[in-house]
Amino acid sequence: MIDVCLLGTGGMMPLPDRWLTALMLKYNGQSILIDCGEGTQIALREVGWSAKQIDLMCFTHYHADHISGLPGMLLTMGNAERTEPLLMVGPKGLERVVNSLRSIAPELPFEIRFKELPGDEDTFDFGDLEITAFKVLHKLTCYGYTVKLKRKGRFSVDRAKQQNIPLKFWNRLQHGETVEEGGVTYTPSMVLGEERKGLHITYCTDTRPVPQIAEQAKDADLFICEGMYGDKDCAEKAAGYKHMTMQEAARICEKARPKEVWLTHFSPSMMKPKQYMDEIDAIYPGIIIPKDGRIKELNFDEE
Amino acid sequence: MIDVCLLGTGGMMPLPDRWLTALMLKYNGQSILIDCGEGTQIALREVGWSAKQIDLMCFTHYHADHISGLPGMLLTMGNAERTEPLLMVGPKGLERVVNSLRSIAPELPFEIRFKELPGDEDTFDFGDLEITAFKVLHKLTCYGYTVKLKRKGRFSVDRAKQQNIPLKFWNRLQHGETVEEGGVTYTPSMVLGEERKGLHITYCTDTRPVPQIAEQAKDADLFICEGMYGDKDCAEKAAGYKHMTMQEAARICEKARPKEVWLTHFSPSMMKPKQYMDEIDAIYPGIIIPKDGRIKELNFDEE
Repeated sequence: MIDVCLLGTGGMMPLPDRWLTALMLKYNGQSILIDCGEGTQIALREVGWSAKQIDLMCFTHYHADHISGLPGMLLTMGNAERTEPLLMVGPKGLERVVNSLRSIAPELPFEIRFKELPGDEDTFDFGDLEITAFKVLHKLTCYGYTVKLKRKGRFSVDRAKQQNIPLKFWNRLQHGETVEEGGVTYTPSMVLGEERKGLHITYCTDTRPVPQIAEQAKDADLFICEGMYGDKDCAEKAAGYKHMTMQEAARICEKARPKEVWLTHFSPSMMKPKQYMDEIDAIYPGIIIPKDGRIKELNFDEE
Repeated sequence: MIDVCLLGTGGMMPLPDRWLTALMLKYNGQSILIDCGEGTQIALREVGWSAKQIDLMCFTHYHADHISGLPGMLLTMGNAERTEPLLMVGPKGLERVVNSLRSIAPELPFEIRFKELPGDEDTFDFGDLEITAFKVLHKLTCYGYTVKLKRKGRFSVDRAKQQNIPLKFWNRLQHGETVEEGGVTYTPSMVLGEERKGLHITYCTDTRPVPQIAEQAKDADLFICEGMYGDKDCAEKAAGYKHMTMQEAARICEKARPKEVWLTHFSPSMMKPKQYMDEIDAIYPGIIIPKDGRIKELNFDEE
């Protein structure tokens, strides 16, 4: 239903065996890319996903490792003959930064629209998805993103029959449409039960552990969080550079209780992130230290 | 003596198995990088060469595939604690383009100096190397580069003895120094024979075949030249996009007679560049269709 791919797991600089951290989500023919570092377009090609369908790009912040791949990605989308407008969302300064980078990619066959994030939290709709950008704490203004897909209540055949709703309207009502015929208005609420649990993904990197992260990731189906350092001796460094350790990320999970967690944005100095597995597992069991290109399909619960 | 590495062989966009075209030369503790596309810093790391020692960056032109990796490369050099100034050379607009890209890499621990190329041809010294930038014919102003290392004449022991030059000065005179003692001046020309054949590398990509390329590559030890398309049916496309075919590159070699030739900047649509080997070999034998990361050490002839 929602396909998620963590294109890379690196921070700071791309490495021969580790792309920079970026996330792609596909839903209903549309794609969303969060961050675009140097090499992200190659990582995308490696997993066989298309750049052409990216309709929304969200940026956490404007450090090079999160946006340096943008000119190349835009040109590749242009070469694939994309013509539909592309929406970009990011902290203030977005249009200025993107236009600066476009000094080497001035001609594109599609329009770019900009949405600069106004405050500490901003929620907007993108098709059926609801996206919340929330400010975190890094050296530069930086946002995390929560993507939610809501799920309508269950359709009640009994209630539809009781209210003599014509059979021909059931499908449209079930899909949220309001219908009118012969002066009578039929609304979805007449036949749908309470909203059911939908899907919820929270992505957050380049930040100290601040309370709003656990709030955003509360009960998420998938929480993707930075864990730049694994070694306890790096705690001070993490604080200084406004990043966090894997242990700090795990303690956010203790509060948020997400279903699944992927750590990312590993320091280039950390060659084997998995070696800290036991330690973080002791704090919050089941956290995954993924490889580049990890893919998951998220679906509504059976019921 | 001069180590050369063709970091990538691709054009237009980086691919999972093909980095963008860029060349690095190492001589006497200094490094020169020509072009820096998305992923060039990863290619450099793959061959185990260091970004920190890059003292000179030359740009052919400002299409993204030749400069998009610059912000990341600069940050990586900064992270390696480079503090020496870096010289950049390229077509007019260099400072503006580089400063635009530096919107995502504003803080560096070293100074950048700019040399914008003034005309059709410009020769300058860089340490012991002599570099010539020569204008070629692309959609944007574009230059090729020739790098030469001159070789002094042979030291004549007989002439040194005949002229009663003190033994203690021989070494300095041999290395080109002029020495004075007791009112007598000793010059290198007193003991050195005629200049001998040095080393000569010509690099040229993103251009139609114009006469100055063969002039520059004349008798080169290594000529690196674009050959974007191999299929004869692409000749018109090559002309339209201001590139050239492998066959056109081979015909330049017929005129220039370089010792060794590497083709590069292959179109992403050309999956197996080697399939055109026989055809280009028939025009100029021995042309190499290299893989990414091809390395060669160039040395003075024995004598």
